[in-house]
Amino acid sequence: MPVNYVTPSAASLAPVAGVRIGIAEAGIRKKGRRDLTLIEVDEGSRVAGVFTKNRFCAAPVHVCRAHLAQASVRALVINTGIANAGTGEQGMAAARETCEGVAKLLEVAPNQVLPFSTGVILEQLPVDRLVAGLPAAAADLRADGWFDAAHAIMTTDTVAKAASRSVELGGRTVTLTGMSKGAGMIRPNMATMLGFIATDVHIAQDMLEGLVREVADLSFNSITVDGDTSTNDAFVVIATGQAENAEIIDEQSNGYAAFREALAGIAIELAQALVRDGEGATKFIEVAVEGGRDRDECRAVAYAVSHSPLVKTAFFASDPNLGRILAAVGYAGIDDLDVGKVSVWLSSAGEEVLVAERGGRATGYREEDGARIMQRAEIGVRIALARGDAAATVWTCDFSYDYVKINAEYRS
Amino acid sequence: MPVNYVTPSAASLAPVAGVRIGIAEAGIRKKGRRDLTLIEVDEGSRVAGVFTKNRFCAAPVHVCRAHLAQASVRALVINTGIANAGTGEQGMAAARETCEGVAKLLEVAPNQVLPFSTGVILEQLPVDRLVAGLPAAAADLRADGWFDAAHAIMTTDTVAKAASRSVELGGRTVTLTGMSKGAGMIRPNMATMLGFIATDVHIAQDMLEGLVREVADLSFNSITVDGDTSTNDAFVVIATGQAENAEIIDEQSNGYAAFREALAGIAIELAQALVRDGEGATKFIEVAVEGGRDRDECRAVAYAVSHSPLVKTAFFASDPNLGRILAAVGYAGIDDLDVGKVSVWLSSAGEEVLVAERGGRATGYREEDGARIMQRAEIGVRIALARGDAAATVWTCDFSYDYVKINAEYRS
Repeated sequence: MPVNYVTPSAASLAPVAGVRIGIAEAGIRKKGRRDLTLIEVDEGSRVAGVFTKNRFCAAPVHVCRAHLAQASVRALVINTGIANAGTGEQGMAAARETCEGVAKLLEVAPNQVLPFSTGVILEQLPVDRLVAGLPAAAADLRADGWFDAAHAIMTTDTVAKAASRSVELGGRTVTLTGMSKGAGMIRPNMATMLGFIATDVHIAQDMLEGLVREVADLSFNSITVDGDTSTNDAFVVIATGQAENAEIIDEQSNGYAAFREALAGIAIELAQALVRDGEGATKFIEVAVEGGRDRDECRAVAYAVSHSPLVKTAFFASDPNLGRILAAVGYAGIDDLDVGKVSVWLSSAGEEVLVAERGGRATGYREEDGARIMQRAEIGVRIALARGDAAATVWTCDFSYDYVKINAEYRS
Repeated sequence: MPVNYVTPSAASLAPVAGVRIGIAEAGIRKKGRRDLTLIEVDEGSRVAGVFTKNRFCAAPVHVCRAHLAQASVRALVINTGIANAGTGEQGMAAARETCEGVAKLLEVAPNQVLPFSTGVILEQLPVDRLVAGLPAAAADLRADGWFDAAHAIMTTDTVAKAASRSVELGGRTVTLTGMSKGAGMIRPNMATMLGFIATDVHIAQDMLEGLVREVADLSFNSITVDGDTSTNDAFVVIATGQAENAEIIDEQSNGYAAFREALAGIAIELAQALVRDGEGATKFIEVAVEGGRDRDECRAVAYAVSHSPLVKTAFFASDPNLGRILAAVGYAGIDDLDVGKVSVWLSSAGEEVLVAERGGRATGYREEDGARIMQRAEIGVRIALARGDAAATVWTCDFSYDYVKINAEYRS
């Protein structure tokens, strides 16, 4: 059960002009499940993406990077079941054959297709079954396919994640609709596995690329479930331009700020949805670090706290075992940290409690106040380092019996 | 239940000339348990230690560092129950009062006493109860106190860890006896919480200090249970000099190599015992990385694999989910790693299986071979990077339901 997250209804997911989506059952790894998604985008659309920094990145990630550099994108194809990672030359050939299959059906060039895979690593993709499933996905292409696609890209996810929002830019309504998947192997490094957002905004290619990197950093690159960076992480934004707003060509363009806010907002919502549905999660935790010298050291502290199995099991147990948070701050790698200046607050539902100050237990802190907040499903941890003006926020979940159960049983 | 580890019998732990140990029940945190250990060492003994690099290091760690720099050590005092970390000035005062209490009883100076604490962080040490317990511990001082002390320093440990060995140096028999404790918050950085080795070897102070750092790196700094570096880690070696071997003054000294081997051997045994008794452990895993450019990158890869919750849950499930190992190698931080050259072997009980080669599944690999090895309690993972001559080994355990249970319930 995800923490405070309900899949939006099909009706709430707005179609994006210039984007059609279809799904199919290709039997990639198991029969009888929707495991193939095809996204067709109109000519003239602009696409930008960021991908995993894992050195064992999957074959489709290699192909995506190459195709994005070569040609304008006309289609995306996503399979679940097999990640096509650690599959060598055979895996590269399978990713290319997938693109060729899509290209033939949609009458585009193979390098106008971006392939994405998610699932088990180190097993070969049954590309024949995938390609055999493509005609059914193509026949299913429709503007309102988001709801079904958000389900079709799930693996260990318990709910589908998707969101829509709209923003007025110079009198034109711009729509953004996106979906994401992933519940384990989540500590994205550049982007998570998998986030897709489409919008009809008209924006220059270089501006779109810059925004994708910036927004990825604030959203998918600021979450963690288990600290494991996937081999297949990808975050892709499609801009079809069909809203007919005045093109956004620089940061001074009319609508830039509003579009950036809308894009960051939907990306953060989709990224947080992954954590809310993190494997075995019972709590959604925001770790906000402030007063650092730079954003990097704030992120290092936030991730140390967010990755600590001891902190995560304490949240699971609703135990205000605050020493574990301090210990994680202490080993986060800031060699000259003056722990005598560190303060920590716990918060939930508008209530904030100072639990540690000057590196120790806060004078006025009462265990029952900490315990009351730890009982809640959404908890904030605020850590003030008191050595600068930088800040960073990371979202994570707790660590429960079910995390172990899910991952011990995943392949069986 | 620890993995293949049985506490040695009291009789197998050899006394070390010049060292006496006594224990007591001081009621530090809970009544009716042995929670106080006193170690008295003869005048003329040499002592060296390495301590946690956690910035939130505990008050006793600060006091140990200061006292080691000021005076020759005559006593060590160890309490369990409360870690005296994150306790500010009051905690520093408590650590100093502890030393004063010991000094008065044993008629030494307070800065000749090293204090050690382990237990809950962020709670104040009840120093009055600790000091009140000291006379009973002093009355209990005896050369054969190791067995009881190894039990008295336990916290979430399920078994006591101790070992003895002896080595001939130029016709003199040198004895080494040590003990260690710790099962969670184990990813030592300089030393673990807590390792003590005493020996009657005659060795120069600077040689002892160098050896302690070197041996810590090979033993306590090469293990991990959960990746959490404790606030209280300490590894201390006491050399009383009473074996009357010719003093070891440099690496050419007679007996240096033999003593180094004996010291490293007992330290590795004690460090591995912590992993065998790691919280919830059902498997003992050696991750050996070879063919790196330097030891640091080999350690980074070994720790990435050893810390991955996905790898650890796969070991718990005896599931040869090898893609998780490759994914961890890929995100270990070697930016120019050529994954096409990486090979991975699984081994157990003398049987070794090549599971991945050239970055993918090995041609001859059969799932049943991997599955057979994963069933065993002691498993080796060997990873060849094929880019240099450096190597490093890390020992870890799997991640089970019981890890979550133990840490969710630790304070209750």
